[in-house]
Amino acid sequence: MRVADYMMKFLAERKADRFFLLTGNGAMYMNDAIAQQPSIKYYCARNEAAAPMMAESFARLTGRLGVVCVTSGPGSTNAVSGLAEAWVDSAPIMIISGQAPSDQIPQREEARGVRSFGTAGIDIIPIVAPMTKYAVTIESPESIRYHMEKAYHLATTGRPGPVWIDVPMDMQYAMIDPDKLRGFTPALEPTAPATGAVEQVIALLSKAKRPLIIGGHGVRQGKAVELFTQLVERTKIPVAFSRLGQDMLPFSHPLNMGHVGRRGMKYSKPLLAKPDLIITLGSRLAVSLAGSNLDHFAPDAAVVMVDIDPAEIAMLSNRLNVPIRADVRVFLEHLLAGLSQTKLPDWSAWTAECQRLKAANPMLKPEQKKDPIDLYYFMSRLDAAATARHVLTTDAGSNFYVGGQVYHFEKGQREITSGAYAAMGLSIPLAIGAAVANPDGQVLAVTGDGSLELNIQELKTLSYYGFNVKLFVINNGGYASMRNWQDSFFEGRRIGSDDDTGAEMLDLKKVAETFDLPFVLMEKSDLIDQQLREIISKDGPVFVEVVCDSTQVIVQPYLETALSS
Amino acid sequence: MRVADYMMKFLAERKADRFFLLTGNGAMYMNDAIAQQPSIKYYCARNEAAAPMMAESFARLTGRLGVVCVTSGPGSTNAVSGLAEAWVDSAPIMIISGQAPSDQIPQREEARGVRSFGTAGIDIIPIVAPMTKYAVTIESPESIRYHMEKAYHLATTGRPGPVWIDVPMDMQYAMIDPDKLRGFTPALEPTAPATGAVEQVIALLSKAKRPLIIGGHGVRQGKAVELFTQLVERTKIPVAFSRLGQDMLPFSHPLNMGHVGRRGMKYSKPLLAKPDLIITLGSRLAVSLAGSNLDHFAPDAAVVMVDIDPAEIAMLSNRLNVPIRADVRVFLEHLLAGLSQTKLPDWSAWTAECQRLKAANPMLKPEQKKDPIDLYYFMSRLDAAATARHVLTTDAGSNFYVGGQVYHFEKGQREITSGAYAAMGLSIPLAIGAAVANPDGQVLAVTGDGSLELNIQELKTLSYYGFNVKLFVINNGGYASMRNWQDSFFEGRRIGSDDDTGAEMLDLKKVAETFDLPFVLMEKSDLIDQQLREIISKDGPVFVEVVCDSTQVIVQPYLETALSS
Repeated sequence: MRVADYMMKFLAERKADRFFLLTGNGAMYMNDAIAQQPSIKYYCARNEAAAPMMAESFARLTGRLGVVCVTSGPGSTNAVSGLAEAWVDSAPIMIISGQAPSDQIPQREEARGVRSFGTAGIDIIPIVAPMTKYAVTIESPESIRYHMEKAYHLATTGRPGPVWIDVPMDMQYAMIDPDKLRGFTPALEPTAPATGAVEQVIALLSKAKRPLIIGGHGVRQGKAVELFTQLVERTKIPVAFSRLGQDMLPFSHPLNMGHVGRRGMKYSKPLLAKPDLIITLGSRLAVSLAGSNLDHFAPDAAVVMVDIDPAEIAMLSNRLNVPIRADVRVFLEHLLAGLSQTKLPDWSAWTAECQRLKAANPMLKPEQKKDPIDLYYFMSRLDAAATARHVLTTDAGSNFYVGGQVYHFEKGQREITSGAYAAMGLSIPLAIGAAVANPDGQVLAVTGDGSLELNIQELKTLSYYGFNVKLFVINNGGYASMRNWQDSFFEGRRIGSDDDTGAEMLDLKKVAETFDLPFVLMEKSDLIDQQLREIISKDGPVFVEVVCDSTQVIVQPYLETALSS
Repeated sequence: MRVADYMMKFLAERKADRFFLLTGNGAMYMNDAIAQQPSIKYYCARNEAAAPMMAESFARLTGRLGVVCVTSGPGSTNAVSGLAEAWVDSAPIMIISGQAPSDQIPQREEARGVRSFGTAGIDIIPIVAPMTKYAVTIESPESIRYHMEKAYHLATTGRPGPVWIDVPMDMQYAMIDPDKLRGFTPALEPTAPATGAVEQVIALLSKAKRPLIIGGHGVRQGKAVELFTQLVERTKIPVAFSRLGQDMLPFSHPLNMGHVGRRGMKYSKPLLAKPDLIITLGSRLAVSLAGSNLDHFAPDAAVVMVDIDPAEIAMLSNRLNVPIRADVRVFLEHLLAGLSQTKLPDWSAWTAECQRLKAANPMLKPEQKKDPIDLYYFMSRLDAAATARHVLTTDAGSNFYVGGQVYHFEKGQREITSGAYAAMGLSIPLAIGAAVANPDGQVLAVTGDGSLELNIQELKTLSYYGFNVKLFVINNGGYASMRNWQDSFFEGRRIGSDDDTGAEMLDLKKVAETFDLPFVLMEKSDLIDQQLREIISKDGPVFVEVVCDSTQVIVQPYLETALSS
């Protein structure tokens, strides 16, 4: 059996059987092995940059490893864009790259500085190592089982993340006997909280007057959504979310305070100023949520942070009262067990105070149903039109911020977006990965007319495979977010953000036609609901231009004057 | 003065005043400083991936530093694709990136593993360090002069290459007194050949019967084209070229044996088998030229290699008889001085033998003027239509190989293409950089219909700025190169290379219209010359679809049976 065939069989057996790739000479035997493995379905991206984004979305929705195959050299470096996304948002993906034959890779120390290997090869491992949990060039055919097992284990356990296996041409076709290969035995990583930690949390809870739970992506990644909901119901503590946590609970839930932070709910600032105890679960408390060094948090609040990643805990350790390195799921099991013996305080007055704050500060007011379309209104109607079979995706810019402020997730729809990185052009590849993950469902993808261009080539991937993706492209004159900061910080000195400074936009109807997508124009707020119903009722891809107000202002709770509760 | 303004003034003073960028929040003060520096002209790319490719082309044509500015996080990781190109092809460019504020970057050791910084930031330096000559995050405002001087020096001296300066937000706007900053004093790097080396070369020459000179990119990079030509004229030795060296001498020159290697002249194999002495100047003797470990070279030939990069010499040291680490220009000065005292052998019989080989093996035969258009014929006519004011660009795939086989450079036209990496989608960004470098000239850019998609967004950059670029898109049914290897190695098992396996192509006329480019269809070989005259006679961008034979076979000298001389 060829090494390449062994690899594909290994992955297929673990249901890591959806591949995103761009074929290429340097990966030819792996490409051939993919084509020959019957249970693998592969999808061709049009630029390697987008393939890991597709795999990320697939992995985050299914909990299965997403796989990418790229060729050597440019294929590999192109994939770095998507790799970075998967790294910062903790998606378990594996990237397999072709590489020059072993005898074209320098062996002697003095030659290590050569800039390229063979024909169109590069030493990819040092480049990607900082963004992967494991990255290795295969140096002997017999090591393949060890490296595949180790890479698979690391990608899918602990804080998930990408791994990279680089396979020189001669290794791809080398013959092995699968029964004679050395395996990998994982070291046992601690997943339970340290002794006494749960008791400490219970003690803090017992004397807290205004506790707040914050839920993040790690809850989902740790397959602990149900336990998390049990905790909320058991304790009756108000709960707020990071962007990647917000789809875990319907916004109408009386304890749900929604997504908080710099571009979270309007009342984020007063809400986060009040608690005397904050328990954060599977959220790294990013600057966008909690400010630098948690300076958005009430100065007198005790902060409990439960996270699987010790680096994230160390980053904030000056401000954490109880840092707990643990798998959120294991922690919640322990905590719920501990709480079953505990009588908790009555927090109903505090809860009522939170509910008044929420009720008094809606993100959307009736007068925002107007023309030109207000992005808050459109995004809110999109969320309302979604059902449990829908996945929402967004990318950088206004649509990302607004989605994070008006999506309510009442029907159990999921969101896949970028938590840490917010790359322009992410939404289309995320939508494709979501469509592969969710073949019986539908994807509602939103992108900006500026962002659209960064992965515009993948529109053809949408149409070619006929994915059930409805793509809403916000026409706000392009780069609206950038104009906003240029106007506010630099007295309107613009650069690369409008027609005169290099950012003239494309005619979106022509774009849709060129990439073989049916086109719909949406420009009247009165017609949005009806148009959405029609669009959603059909299968297959649609490109919808949504003409929005080009002067849209994004609500930024930490730039506004304090709100009263 | 803000640090950002100091940086832009520093660059402008060194004529590093053409910037390629995509604006972004994380680089906002640098963006503003660029907009305010009167002598800087900036060009907005539509994806950061393409910006370093544009800067590379500008730098290689002008000899000036090309500059790129990107935002933090995704802006930075997107730029890795282009950075890798500039690295492997030795282009002096500087990439300036925005970064999160310093207080959002981990200081303590245990937190170094955090995956992202601030809002949409990443620790970019470890990622790009393997592909740069210098890469640094600015940690104090007062260090800016030191780092800019050091980076500028390293990018532009020795073997040129990219450098990266990462600037946290608070550093960008920090105020400095430019007169009070510490500077950088470069260490003196050896550029002259070791004592005795030139004499050794002269001694080898004096007894050689069949010497061959090979000229590479380093001759151009070392500003030694004129000295190189003097050497050829003085010695009357036949000369062959690597791909990036081939535009230094017209192909009709009696001593010019053209571009040799795996996809070089048809007679590459017999030619390289004959010499008893090979002197290679500024060529790293890539696998594509010389095989693995120079196994394409005559086993009994003595090999002299002159290169500025000690790693490239170390890579081949097993096979080199005289390795000379030196600046090609300094070496040539010494060698020409030494030769002025030397009587060289008469190599006219050997030269005549080479000339017979060349005459007997043309790359293009009259019957290749046919329909559907033979790519060899088209590329040859394109070369013939070019003048001294033209720059030719190509990218990966068939057009790259064929250009390297039929371009003759009779009128001093230049070529900018990828020597080491051959990325798909490179041609359009290279053409844009060439247009900026060569504002009174014209660029003839060729790309494939597969490659086109990888940077298709930059078509709008072409039309927006009205660059004088004629883009020829080879319609050969997409991914012709990939079908070739799939059919020959894997019994026709295709993956991602045709309509049925994921690579259905776009309608090119629609693409041109969508990106606001005038469109011309070329599909008759009889009309090519006339159409080229018309296209070239006008200013501004044009998109030309060239319908070619989808079964085109590329000449591969090392896969064919030996040719007689």
